[in-house]
Amino acid sequence: MFSPLTPLDWKRRAVKYYPNKTAVIDGEKEFTYKEFGNRADRLSASLMEAGITEGDHVAVMLPNTHYMLECFYGICQLGAVMVPLNYRLSGKELEYIINHSDAKMLIVDEEFARPIEEIGDRLSLEEIIVVSVEGQKTSLTAIDYEGFLTKAPADVKLPEVQIDENRLLTLNYTSGTTSNPKGVMLTHRSNYFNAANFMHHMRVEHDDVYLHTLPMFHANGWGGVWAITAAGGTHVCLRKVDSSFILDLFETRKITLLCGAPTVVNMLVNDPRAREVTMATNPRMGTAGSPPAAALIHKAQDILGLNMIHVYGLTETSPFILYCEWKKEFNTKSPDEQAAIKARQGIELTRLQWRNQGYPSGRGRSTVERRRTR
Amino acid sequence: MFSPLTPLDWKRRAVKYYPNKTAVIDGEKEFTYKEFGNRADRLSASLMEAGITEGDHVAVMLPNTHYMLECFYGICQLGAVMVPLNYRLSGKELEYIINHSDAKMLIVDEEFARPIEEIGDRLSLEEIIVVSVEGQKTSLTAIDYEGFLTKAPADVKLPEVQIDENRLLTLNYTSGTTSNPKGVMLTHRSNYFNAANFMHHMRVEHDDVYLHTLPMFHANGWGGVWAITAAGGTHVCLRKVDSSFILDLFETRKITLLCGAPTVVNMLVNDPRAREVTMATNPRMGTAGSPPAAALIHKAQDILGLNMIHVYGLTETSPFILYCEWKKEFNTKSPDEQAAIKARQGIELTRLQWRNQGYPSGRGRSTVERRRTR
Repeated sequence: MFSPLTPLDWKRRAVKYYPNKTAVIDGEKEFTYKEFGNRADRLSASLMEAGITEGDHVAVMLPNTHYMLECFYGICQLGAVMVPLNYRLSGKELEYIINHSDAKMLIVDEEFARPIEEIGDRLSLEEIIVVSVEGQKTSLTAIDYEGFLTKAPADVKLPEVQIDENRLLTLNYTSGTTSNPKGVMLTHRSNYFNAANFMHHMRVEHDDVYLHTLPMFHANGWGGVWAITAAGGTHVCLRKVDSSFILDLFETRKITLLCGAPTVVNMLVNDPRAREVTMATNPRMGTAGSPPAAALIHKAQDILGLNMIHVYGLTETSPFILYCEWKKEFNTKSPDEQAAIKARQGIELTRLQWRNQGYPSGRGRSTVERRRTR
Repeated sequence: MFSPLTPLDWKRRAVKYYPNKTAVIDGEKEFTYKEFGNRADRLSASLMEAGITEGDHVAVMLPNTHYMLECFYGICQLGAVMVPLNYRLSGKELEYIINHSDAKMLIVDEEFARPIEEIGDRLSLEEIIVVSVEGQKTSLTAIDYEGFLTKAPADVKLPEVQIDENRLLTLNYTSGTTSNPKGVMLTHRSNYFNAANFMHHMRVEHDDVYLHTLPMFHANGWGGVWAITAAGGTHVCLRKVDSSFILDLFETRKITLLCGAPTVVNMLVNDPRAREVTMATNPRMGTAGSPPAAALIHKAQDILGLNMIHVYGLTETSPFILYCEWKKEFNTKSPDEQAAIKARQGIELTRLQWRNQGYPSGRGRSTVERRRTR
């Protein structure tokens, strides 16, 4: 009866209990949990067919699309490891990371393929898969993502893969401010706990409609890629962070929750259309990364009606580690005072997840891990 | 950096971050988290002094008092195992359970000591500790609980005990409807997950004031003994389940959350004073055990203004396993229809904790466990 801790269980649960609920919205496209689960399963089966097996590393460089979400589940449920890449990096940086990560395969969005074209012959990859984008044309020798999925039968049934909760789920590279980027080894267990903390501190509910303003490559969207599925909520994808697109989605999709760095909060605060849109729905918004100024929180709350939640973390801690806990007594304070309190970094998370990681800091392609996964 | 999953971490966190917040209210007595933590630590130190060590079993037969809460933390943080006993059982039943549980020590409330007096010479206990109760007089040869605590210095510092998350935290006996009661072995990990589910599905918040209407001996108060501490909320104790006491506490202590079997819901529904009291605060109430009738849920919600949450579980599953998930679309239905939906047992918990147990069913004093703990 002992079962490992993995966020992948939540996909199986959502497909079982919410098959016809909208799982993912991406522009005009919508997928129910059954459809989304099937696409992830077909990706897994096609990857197996292509030789990807337990412990293999697959790099993924995609914006916040349904393809990116499919990769998290489709790659990882094989026991393989996803390496999410920042598509804003230079060719030189990507060359270092891809080769260092030991990736056998790369899945890349056609819009962001240019740096890969430049470094393609210096990469140790065995295969590249491209997500085609209208109006883009890559010169890469690559397989088309949708064509790749057809390798698997439409009603594919995956073999059960035994997961060890202390093995890698994702390998997330840091920004490399001080030296080369480090590959942070996040396990099934650490991803699970971070997502559980995300659910608790963002107060995720079954009917939440979550907008992926935060890059999913960034510490797995702070855990949002797993937590929304856990609750059976709806993921709304966003290819480009632009306040006009965001406000459109607030209106049309009735967004209830989003996350973003203070720069994204600032972008919303400075959009003259924002007040009318956000005041109608009062979404919750998590912010983290650089410290949000009290003045910014004040504007977001009082002018836009956003319900701000201040968290803090780093890739090495899965990422959440601190949060600013709201207490009933703060409700009697002035809006200014409330914003000043919310600007504090706060205290350790309730779930204490950061103490429950397999690997706390970047060890990238360590010899230990290579021996274990190859 | 790897740290085991145990609900005991939450006490350490609460003492660190909320030292001056009210942790426990018991009649006229109030303890801050610092005071509560100190009493639990003094209990641990006194137990060590008395020879209790890692793996030892300590039986506890107390109503829902601050002493009972102290036992959960004070016994278990030594790596010892708490065996909560139902104080409504007969001497014959208690004799079977206490001897079967391998308990070295018993902590008993003076009001409920009578059956122990009858069977005292047939118990394999090494020591009995009595919580004195005014107006009660036991003939047991026993140590007084408050006197026992004075064995430890006031500013006691406990040695750190390494916890294995898959070892026993509590040994909980079933009611024995079909044969002798079975000792269900609940680990640190299974207690942790159940409490995390409790927090999520009961929507526990930092400022919650939780009334312990549910017996704490019953599957560790369904996890409430841990979950409220995790959030830094306030535990309100209740020696006797009586609707007039409950309503008094609703008024004086501003209760926001409670749990109880349908019989307790029924008791509240039938108290003519309830409507006035509960309608003022609209507490959330979890119910489980026997199936609550839709008519009862309807009355609790519409007449009393209680916000009902229907869960389901059994001691063998830590206990929560199912819950009736509330969906936004239900809000448009009539009160009758809403009650009928809430009467359903529902679906698997979001956290899937029941799949994450060390030991799924009663093995009581198995030879395996004896070898491991002695």
